[in-house]
Parts: sequence; structure tokens; C-alpha cells
Amino acid sequence: MVRLVDVPLMLRLLREVGVEQFLVGLTAHIEADFRRWLAFDKSPRLASHSPAGVIELMPTNDAALYSFKFVNGHPANTAQGKLTVTAFGALADVHTGYPLLICEMTLLTALRTAATSALAAKHVAAPGATVMALVGTGAQAEFQALAFKAVNGVRTVRYFDCDAPAMHKFARNLAGVAGLQLVPAASAAQAAQGAHIITTATAKKARVPVITAAMIHPGVHLNAIGGDCPGKTEIEESVVRSARVVVEYAPQARIEGEIQGLGAGFPVIELWEIITGRKPGRESAGQITLFDSVGFAIEDFAALRYVAGLLEDMSIDASMSLVPELRDPKNLYAALGAA
Amino acid sequence: MVRLVDVPLMLRLLREVGVEQFLVGLTAHIEADFRRWLAFDKSPRLASHSPAGVIELMPTNDAALYSFKFVNGHPANTAQGKLTVTAFGALADVHTGYPLLICEMTLLTALRTAATSALAAKHVAAPGATVMALVGTGAQAEFQALAFKAVNGVRTVRYFDCDAPAMHKFARNLAGVAGLQLVPAASAAQAAQGAHIITTATAKKARVPVITAAMIHPGVHLNAIGGDCPGKTEIEESVVRSARVVVEYAPQARIEGEIQGLGAGFPVIELWEIITGRKPGRESAGQITLFDSVGFAIEDFAALRYVAGLLEDMSIDASMSLVPELRDPKNLYAALGAA
Repeated sequence: MVRLVDVPLMLRLLREVGVEQFLVGLTAHIEADFRRWLAFDKSPRLASHSPAGVIELMPTNDAALYSFKFVNGHPANTAQGKLTVTAFGALADVHTGYPLLICEMTLLTALRTAATSALAAKHVAAPGATVMALVGTGAQAEFQALAFKAVNGVRTVRYFDCDAPAMHKFARNLAGVAGLQLVPAASAAQAAQGAHIITTATAKKARVPVITAAMIHPGVHLNAIGGDCPGKTEIEESVVRSARVVVEYAPQARIEGEIQGLGAGFPVIELWEIITGRKPGRESAGQITLFDSVGFAIEDFAALRYVAGLLEDMSIDASMSLVPELRDPKNLYAALGAA
Repeated sequence: MVRLVDVPLMLRLLREVGVEQFLVGLTAHIEADFRRWLAFDKSPRLASHSPAGVIELMPTNDAALYSFKFVNGHPANTAQGKLTVTAFGALADVHTGYPLLICEMTLLTALRTAATSALAAKHVAAPGATVMALVGTGAQAEFQALAFKAVNGVRTVRYFDCDAPAMHKFARNLAGVAGLQLVPAASAAQAAQGAHIITTATAKKARVPVITAAMIHPGVHLNAIGGDCPGKTEIEESVVRSARVVVEYAPQARIEGEIQGLGAGFPVIELWEIITGRKPGRESAGQITLFDSVGFAIEDFAALRYVAGLLEDMSIDASMSLVPELRDPKNLYAALGAA
């Protein structure tokens, strides 16, 4: 039986579980799968570029489950009222090759990106971090704020965007969230003042030093989300060089992340190495740490696994007939009986 | 709007169009896309192997549309009442990256494989071929017989399988098809006697010379479907060496097809070269021709394009909500309003 989670069903899951609790559950699943990192086959993304954008397939699998995500990136879409990024994915059974789940992932990708940021901060940020600066209040901003509240105990978000309507949108969207203080700032520098964590999630596809050395202080954790493709970074190079840099998957981060252009020898730690205790996370209270996030297929795998588990737990059927069911599997033509 | 073609809807399309007419339309779409061969990006399949089988993603795209197919191959599945091969695929808009169609492809793959065989024979077999030998009456057999009847005018199928129940299944399935004479044979050699076309579609994953030099006669067209992965071939090497060999995509055929092991220098023609008139097909009435088919992503692209067109023509909605629709595409979080 193949299940279909469309947008209305994803919204039902979020409503019944609660967005913050969903982020907590998602973070736990990503953590569990990062802990099993060596059990996964890790393929490169398969990208198809066109003048308008890119379409990618991101597969991975362990010994029991296979997943892939279809995801696009088309910057000009917003001008015609469409999303820049949409996604859907699937989960399949490695033992039979049968698909198990087709799932919307436009929302799920936003949620898993925030959950992965929260997971990294849990293992790397200074203990007791309650104040976060958020620079860039675009599509990812609210998800980041909620994940850091739910997973890490952040209570204050100091936010800035060079686009004032984007700041209003952010404040309006989160106005009803109890226990989260939202403080607008007049600049990235002002937002960063006194923050234990600085999240950058800006949109401009260029190498823009959104965060410079002058804005940071000892012990801060940088959560750099926006620098996620060649030619797009957000953190001044001297800051990157001074930080303990944590990535998801080094070969991909060296191409797409903040560390692009720093060479193959630039030292990084993969998050799973910290989670499994192979390498230390933060080494001192004053150390600058940087999570250089670009997104990785195992996060999507964990997210699909989480959604499949919720359907089980909540006894939601959502089945569709995507594969013929035959009395004799060697007689495929019999499926056409009705035709 | 994303459309979903599940198995019941695919059966409805086949019923309303008619299986043979569907194969004719599908063949025309594959021919049209092979004619535009150079307009496509051709990626290698992305395969994930496990002890039980393989799961593959097969993407391709032109300047307007992108497609991929998810397909598995798990030989032991039939023992537990499951299909060896299942598939589904998607079509997306290259200009926006938005998905357009999710479609069952277990049936559609069987249909497009047969349509591609018929297309090759149309361009390479001797004119007036009306008698086909069919060796191997497994899952692909009925589709082949119907495609050759509908597209090529085959009127007699002389069939053989080493498994008697498979022969009975084939005869039973096609008993009601008017205008097609089915003649059982006691061996592959007997089936091949007097046939203008010999189709091999056997299942055994080994290098088995199902067709040997002694069985063939001048002018015959060989349609070799079953030899489609490393270690699996059906035609005796001397026959392959004596034939004008036509393939879909040479780099893939040299790994997976009948020509595996014959070296990079073994001369082959790609079918699109014949269709576009760049190279001749059959060069003489007595020439042996061989279509060494392994399946290629552009056939799936054409099949998905055909199905999408049928939905348009027949005004079938079949839409699902796979991508959030937002008033402000920069405000993804607003989609959670209801949650």
C-alpha cells in the first residue's frame, strides 16, 4: 500500500501534533538518523540546470528504506506568484523496491531545515542560549524561530531584514506564539548585539558579508542557512576562518556552503561526528562556532520516516493505488482486464 | 496544478482509448521525441543496489519539460506475490520547476517498452513483416504482441516459453484479440521458423543463447528485449556480430545490452539516427537487423507527455494538492495558517 501525504494532510498532521511538537519530533528523527550516519548510502544530488533554475533529485538509503526528494529552485518564480522552491519526495522499501509513501515536501523541507539547525545548535551552541538574532526574515525565518524555541529554549528573537515588509510579515506570523519575545532591529549589527545565537537566512544570491567580524562576540554560535549554493555566502571570510565549523556532509558543503573557496584542506567537523561522540563540539565557552548548513538527503529521509510514523501512530490510511495488485505477479497483462 | 494518475485512472485511459490505439499514440510520441534527440539532456540512471535488488531514478529533460522515473527490480518479489518491477514517474515544468504530473508507471513502462520495440521495427524490419516469433511469454509478452499488431501489422505470433503455464497465460490473455493468430511452438527454433521478426523477452538473468545462428534466416529482424542488464543476454554472439545493431543510447547499451562485452568499438547505430535520416536503417533485404533494447529515459518522458496530453484531451481533472498555493509566495509560513 502506498500512502499519499498531500498539502491538506500535511497541514492536518501539523495541526494535530502542533507545529512546535512536530519540530521536536522531527529533530529527534534527524538526530537518530545522523547517529546512524555510516549506515547510509550517500549519493551526490542529480541536478538539471536550465536558464530559469535547477531541478534536483536527492536520494539516499539505509539497509531497510530508500528515499528521494524532488526539489526545484527558480528565483524568478515569485514574480509570477509562485514559490521559489517546491518539493515532494518518496519513501520505498529496500527489500521489495515497492514505494511506501509519496509526500509533499515544500513545507516539510522548511521544517526539516529548521529542525537540523536546532539539532546542530543543541550540540554546538553554548549552554543556556536563550537569545537569537535572526537576519533575513524570508520563507525560512518563522520555522527557524519556532524550532529554536521548541528544541533549544530560545525565548527572544532579535530580527532584521533589509526589506521592511518581510519584517512585518515575520512579526505578524508569529504574533500569537506564547513565550517568544520578538524584538525588531534596525540593522544586522543591532540584531546581533547580545545574541547567543545568530541565524542568517538571507535570500540574495551573492557573496554578501551579512555578518562581519565586528558584529560577533566570543562564544556566539552562528547558524548560517542562506549560503547554500555556489556564489552565495553570508559570513565574512575572517569570521568563518576563526570559527569551529560544523557541516552536514563535507564534500557538499565545500561546494555549496560558507566554506566554498576555502580549499579542500579547510578543517570542518561533520555534525554526525559530534552527535556520535567521535569529535568534540564546542571546545570552550569563548569559541565561535558555525553551522554551515546546505541541506542533505538524510534529513529528508528522516523527515519522510517521521511522517510515515505519524500516519501509523494516528491510524491515518491515506492510501492510494499507485502499484497494481495482481493475483499472479507474473501476469501483469491481467491488470488490464478492466481495460 | 499537479495531476495524479493512479492505477485505476491509467486503466480508465486504456479502456477509453483502447489498448492498441494507446500503443499507437505512445509509439508516435516516442518517435516524435527520438526525432528531437539532441534537444534532451541525457543523464546516467542513478542506481541504488541492495542484496535484494536495485532501485533506480531515470531523469531527462528538454527545454520545456523535465521527467524522472522511479523503478525497482527485485527478482525474488514474485515468491511473495509481488511484482519484480514497479515504477512511478513525474513530469515537471522546466521554466518554474513545478511538478505537473505524478503517474503510475508499472503498466506504462510495459506499454512504452513494447511501443519502442514496435517503433524500431517500423524503421528497421523488412517491409511487409506479418509473422513474429515470440520467445519468452512473461510479463512483457502480451504488450509486445499487441504493439506489433497495432503499429507494424503483425498478424501471426508464433510463441514459445520453456514454462508451459506461461504459454497458457499468454494464449488466455490474448484469446479475445481479433485479427491476431496465436501459434504455439515446441521450441524457440520452431517458433522462429518463417518469422519475419523474432522477439526475445526471456527472464533468466544469465547469458543464455536463446536464439542461435541456426535459427535465423536472411532478412530477419531481431527484437531483443530481455538482455537488459550486465550478465543477461539472449542472442548468440555470432548472430549479434553478423547483424546491423540498433540501440537506444550506445553508452548504456554497451553496459546493459546484447552488445555488452563486445567492446567500445563494436559498431552500433542509435535509433534516433535512423528516424532522423542521418543513417540508413536496413541496408538490404537479406540483412539481419537487431534492436538491442534496454530502455531509456526519453521513452518515459514521451510516455508521461502522452498521458498528460490524454488528460487534457479527455478533460480529466485528476488534480491533487501537492504544492501549497499561497497569496504571497514569499510567505510560506502562512500556509500553516490552518495548522
